[in-house]
Amino acid sequence: MTYKLSQIAETIGLDYQGRDIDIDGIHTLSEASPSQLSFFNDAKYASQLSKTKAGAVLIDAKHAKLLPETSIALITDEPYLKLALASRLFTQKITTKGDVPKRGKNCDIDVQVRFGKNVTLGDNVTILAGCYLGDNVTVGSNTLLHPNVTLYHGTQIGERCIIHSGTVIGSDGYGFAHTRTGEHVKIYQNGNAVIEDDVEIGANCTIDRAVFGTTYVRKGTKIDNLIQIAHNCDVGEHCLFASQVGLSGSSTLGRNVVMGGQSATTGHLSIGDFSTLVGRCVATKSLEGGKTYGGFPAIEHRMWLRLQAKISGLIKKKK
Amino acid sequence: MTYKLSQIAETIGLDYQGRDIDIDGIHTLSEASPSQLSFFNDAKYASQLSKTKAGAVLIDAKHAKLLPETSIALITDEPYLKLALASRLFTQKITTKGDVPKRGKNCDIDVQVRFGKNVTLGDNVTILAGCYLGDNVTVGSNTLLHPNVTLYHGTQIGERCIIHSGTVIGSDGYGFAHTRTGEHVKIYQNGNAVIEDDVEIGANCTIDRAVFGTTYVRKGTKIDNLIQIAHNCDVGEHCLFASQVGLSGSSTLGRNVVMGGQSATTGHLSIGDFSTLVGRCVATKSLEGGKTYGGFPAIEHRMWLRLQAKISGLIKKKK
Amino acid sequence: MTYKLSQIAETIGLDYQGRDIDIDGIHTLSEASPSQLSFFNDAKYASQLSKTKAGAVLIDAKHAKLLPETSIALITDEPYLKLALASRLFTQKITTKGDVPKRGKNCDIDVQVRFGKNVTLGDNVTILAGCYLGDNVTVGSNTLLHPNVTLYHGTQIGERCIIHSGTVIGSDGYGFAHTRTGEHVKIYQNGNAVIEDDVEIGANCTIDRAVFGTTYVRKGTKIDNLIQIAHNCDVGEHCLFASQVGLSGSSTLGRNVVMGGQSATTGHLSIGDFSTLVGRCVATKSLEGGKTYGGFPAIEHRMWLRLQAKISGLIKKKK
Repeated sequence: MTYKLSQIAETIGLDYQGRDIDIDGIHTLSEASPSQLSFFNDAKYASQLSKTKAGAVLIDAKHAKLLPETSIALITDEPYLKLALASRLFTQKITTKGDVPKRGKNCDIDVQVRFGKNVTLGDNVTILAGCYLGDNVTVGSNTLLHPNVTLYHGTQIGERCIIHSGTVIGSDGYGFAHTRTGEHVKIYQNGNAVIEDDVEIGANCTIDRAVFGTTYVRKGTKIDNLIQIAHNCDVGEHCLFASQVGLSGSSTLGRNVVMGGQSATTGHLSIGDFSTLVGRCVATKSLEGGKTYGGFPAIEHRMWLRLQAKISGLIKKKK
Repeated sequence: MTYKLSQIAETIGLDYQGRDIDIDGIHTLSEASPSQLSFFNDAKYASQLSKTKAGAVLIDAKHAKLLPETSIALITDEPYLKLALASRLFTQKITTKGDVPKRGKNCDIDVQVRFGKNVTLGDNVTILAGCYLGDNVTVGSNTLLHPNVTLYHGTQIGERCIIHSGTVIGSDGYGFAHTRTGEHVKIYQNGNAVIEDDVEIGANCTIDRAVFGTTYVRKGTKIDNLIQIAHNCDVGEHCLFASQVGLSGSSTLGRNVVMGGQSATTGHLSIGDFSTLVGRCVATKSLEGGKTYGGFPAIEHRMWLRLQAKISGLIKKKK
Repeated sequence: MTYKLSQIAETIGLDYQGRDIDIDGIHTLSEASPSQLSFFNDAKYASQLSKTKAGAVLIDAKHAKLLPETSIALITDEPYLKLALASRLFTQKITTKGDVPKRGKNCDIDVQVRFGKNVTLGDNVTILAGCYLGDNVTVGSNTLLHPNVTLYHGTQIGERCIIHSGTVIGSDGYGFAHTRTGEHVKIYQNGNAVIEDDVEIGANCTIDRAVFGTTYVRKGTKIDNLIQIAHNCDVGEHCLFASQVGLSGSSTLGRNVVMGGQSATTGHLSIGDFSTLVGRCVATKSLEGGKTYGGFPAIEHRMWLRLQAKISGLIKKKK
């Protein structure tokens, strides 16, 4: 989908009269290309303004002068709200139209599976009843989808994966801009989700598509049931997640990270390689690799055990 | 469904010889109409006895004299258990029988969608494969149901809603009476669930129907994935729930309440307008609006931060 | 499925030249029969070695001499990893092939239900659209499956059960062996799941099949929505679980155990009859019956309340 910048400006209620360019998507300041629109909404990203390659940027008047000459400023005092309105232009219309998938050898596909357009399956793919694969989904060879799995459009599943029943991959990330009167305007999630090779995902998990770019679950990672992986997470290779883990948006995990049952991350942080978060732990900021963490907020597990002992001592002494 | 009171009494094993009336449902003391049966099970509702409009009330002998003359007392020393037995009479039989829905213009409905009887769809409704809409469901115009959504009978969905895959709306609330030998008798959940306009609900959420009356998610509210909203909750307008939130039964939330990831309420409480509960917070009693809360039990967030600092200090001092 | 021991050894990369026997499955040291393979991986089970009836045991050279003469030692320094490789031999191939189920009288089965081979339904069974019942599933009389329920192969459901939408029973437990380079090798979960009579299970729950043997939910237990019951759990009769509870693997619960919302167990422990774990409680070790527990780690509730008061006091005093 490509629009003239002037068209976009008009659609989202901005007055723009300058040079017109073609815009074919939206991305962050650091990732946007010259044919993409970006936005500036948070002072902590100010250092990125001068380096952005975005063709145009939704930005307040005060910061607009920090943009390079190659980026057109679309001046607004509500850049995030305008971003939300613009995001709708680039979303794929959801329809029931489908097609026969391209498929490799020896696939075993139930008659009660529904495919969108342009789906591609490798060899020896097994898909049981009630699964749905949206437009442009790809599934690698030797992968097994148990019944009632939903893969939204654009989802990519690697080879030798096992996806258990009820799991939903590629559903919309949770992103909204807010009006001054407290209403929420959807930021259409136009990225996708990629599950690499040799991943196993348990039952009734939810893995959201990215707002821009891609949500990743990397090679060899195994996750249990009822787990939430939010938009723009990047889960490293060979991670292990026990049941009911929740990753907030833009959590980046290294390789071989172990997350205990019901543990969680708040968003926009990194967990280093070979870390372990024990059950119920909550990472509220980035954590160094190679260590074991516990508690909320997460601290080193041995400290947490000492802390627990201290806390217990508050009443035991008195007994 | 209408029964003679004498029939109900007989069915649930009570001896009743008085005036006979028609009973067409069950409700609480405060909400029951003259054609409904109610029950008295908890001393804290004693003040409602004299004001009830219920046609008949399951009640112990001692309290029966507090009822107004218009309410017939059905005397029992196990009113809650008898309520459970009576609730079964008013439940809708679940069958596979369906019918073609009434539908507005330009609907896009997958062939693998199943409808109960008397379903009504507005204009431009899109429903993808694997969805199920039970008897008497209504879906407003411009609403989108992603694949594998289940709407139990009587569920009402507003206009411009988006419901993501795997979400279940209108399933039975969790309500049981208990026998003296420790068995649990189902209280049939004969209410419904209503989702108002402009609501978005993430993947694999569960929103239960009310035991009596209605579970509400009000206009403009946006909820993330894997969220539990129990029976008889009333979620106000423009609320925001992050993933894995759990609301216990009869939680009433004002407008613009924000619930962080994995936060929760225990039941039968109110959360005021414009409150925020941060991640993992648990509201154990009603909370005043306009404030931010943290911790379990919930306290004001700034106090919780002080408390966390104190707790951390228990070991840091010793180091 | 039966293999020669020599075949198994070859498949998993072990050199074995001794007496050959037929092996038809895998089980723990204490449960394995003379026609089954077992494994020794954890010093705490050393006392079981001399008593095992297993036909053969994957075991390190040092401990092999503790086996009885009736058990053949398959020597390896990675018994758990070899177990994982062997487990694959005994797993049932998942295919879309199905058959018409055997069914009792007056069943009401939607046309959009899919059955594997050799499914058996009792009388008056109701199964709504989108359900999937794998090979060898049995469903007792008067049981109701709401739409989009998935029962993996070998699952047994009792009489008068109600299973709500989106629930998955019999999915693979979460079990992996780990290579020295940090990769995870699936331990195929060749057990099953059994739900006894009069059980009600809420929406979007996940109940995993056992790795060996059976995961049980016993008679009369009622569980709410979004609950995780891991492999090899044994949930006693007449238990009550509020929403978002998570049981880790091999949790054994007595009768009438009450688990509050978002409470959990870590694995390999027992909870005694008539215990209550309040909301958010985590049992980290076995708990005596008849008591109420709170906190993480779980302590007696009255102690936990005292502890909470002490903790609150840390800041209140200072105010």
